[in-house]
Amino acid sequence: MENDALKKLVNSITEIVINQIEEMKITSSKAIPIGVSNRHIHLSRADIDQLFGTGYELTKLRDLKQPGQYACNEVLIVKGIKGEIHRVRILGPERNQTQVELSQGDCIRLKVQGQVRESGNLKGSAPIELIGPKGAVKLEEGAIIALRHIHMSLEDAERLGVSDKDLVSVKVTSGRGGQFDNVLIRAGKGYELEMHLDTDEANAMMLKCNDSVEII
Amino acid sequence: MENDALKKLVNSITEIVINQIEEMKITSSKAIPIGVSNRHIHLSRADIDQLFGTGYELTKLRDLKQPGQYACNEVLIVKGIKGEIHRVRILGPERNQTQVELSQGDCIRLKVQGQVRESGNLKGSAPIELIGPKGAVKLEEGAIIALRHIHMSLEDAERLGVSDKDLVSVKVTSGRGGQFDNVLIRAGKGYELEMHLDTDEANAMMLKCNDSVEII
Repeated sequence: MENDALKKLVNSITEIVINQIEEMKITSSKAIPIGVSNRHIHLSRADIDQLFGTGYELTKLRDLKQPGQYACNEVLIVKGIKGEIHRVRILGPERNQTQVELSQGDCIRLKVQGQVRESGNLKGSAPIELIGPKGAVKLEEGAIIALRHIHMSLEDAERLGVSDKDLVSVKVTSGRGGQFDNVLIRAGKGYELEMHLDTDEANAMMLKCNDSVEII
Repeated sequence: MENDALKKLVNSITEIVINQIEEMKITSSKAIPIGVSNRHIHLSRADIDQLFGTGYELTKLRDLKQPGQYACNEVLIVKGIKGEIHRVRILGPERNQTQVELSQGDCIRLKVQGQVRESGNLKGSAPIELIGPKGAVKLEEGAIIALRHIHMSLEDAERLGVSDKDLVSVKVTSGRGGQFDNVLIRAGKGYELEMHLDTDEANAMMLKCNDSVEII
């Protein structure tokens, strides 16, 4: 065997071994990457028509980590009992019911009685007003403070020993340090592993996007 | 013994017993009441002169829980690298060095590189600008994010089994639930038992003033 051929073989084997080790590291890690959710809006078809004009199509600014979800170029004014917040981003695609996700800090600023709710659970949630370029919408309900949650695939759920709808606790060792309790597991097809915190929660622990935490 | 005198005696004894039980409940409780600190400013004499005019005396709006500390009627504009926050309250009395306490949310809004610091530890902290009715002050350092801390008397420290400068963890069972780590104990004469959190931290756990937490 020639010297060069031998070198090539050794390099190939080394590469295979390194890749295998890296993959083992990832699948044996319990780290959950963080996604910080700023205040945002999901819109129904009827409310898009009302705010932007009939038949208007939202335009994509960038994809989000969760497959099929994206930030739109369009923003709205959110109006509470007192005060407004301008340039609140819309996330697509359209949903069956309009949902406005605020932080508790936002709710205090707008004098909105925000309740911590799971996404989609809007019955009896706080009223809110949205103002767009072509019209306004007064919602009887729809403003919530999102319940802390972790998106994951069913494979990740099995690996991490949790199930869809479990409430878990999560340890924060970086930043200011601490723990979040009552964190909802949302395990299902088409989810990427990611813990969603709002800006109050991220700032309280000094966490940024792609920092990581661990389920305990 | 007359009936009335007997009744009176029984009432007196009952009252004494109830009071004793109440006192035992308080001293055996491990509850720490919460004080939420909104963004605020402590000013040096020189900076009061510069912002309000030479010799100006700050006026009291209301006393705070910590003896001798008070909120002033006076407010200032805080200006960062980008953007301003108006009506930021001054707390009295005067200090040796001006200190601006912001939340991480405020720092992001102002583009200030806020570091988590113990009160008074300002060396190398973030620069900030203050604008008052008679002038402005550009500080080379002085803006911090206050380190979570618990004020307490030496008697409370003994009762709770902690010492001045300890770092402890605190459990939050109300609100959204969780835990704060790296909480500084500030035990000394003239302190009232109170855990100080900033607005990000309070909102992340949905805590209000006078809610309580426990050292673990």
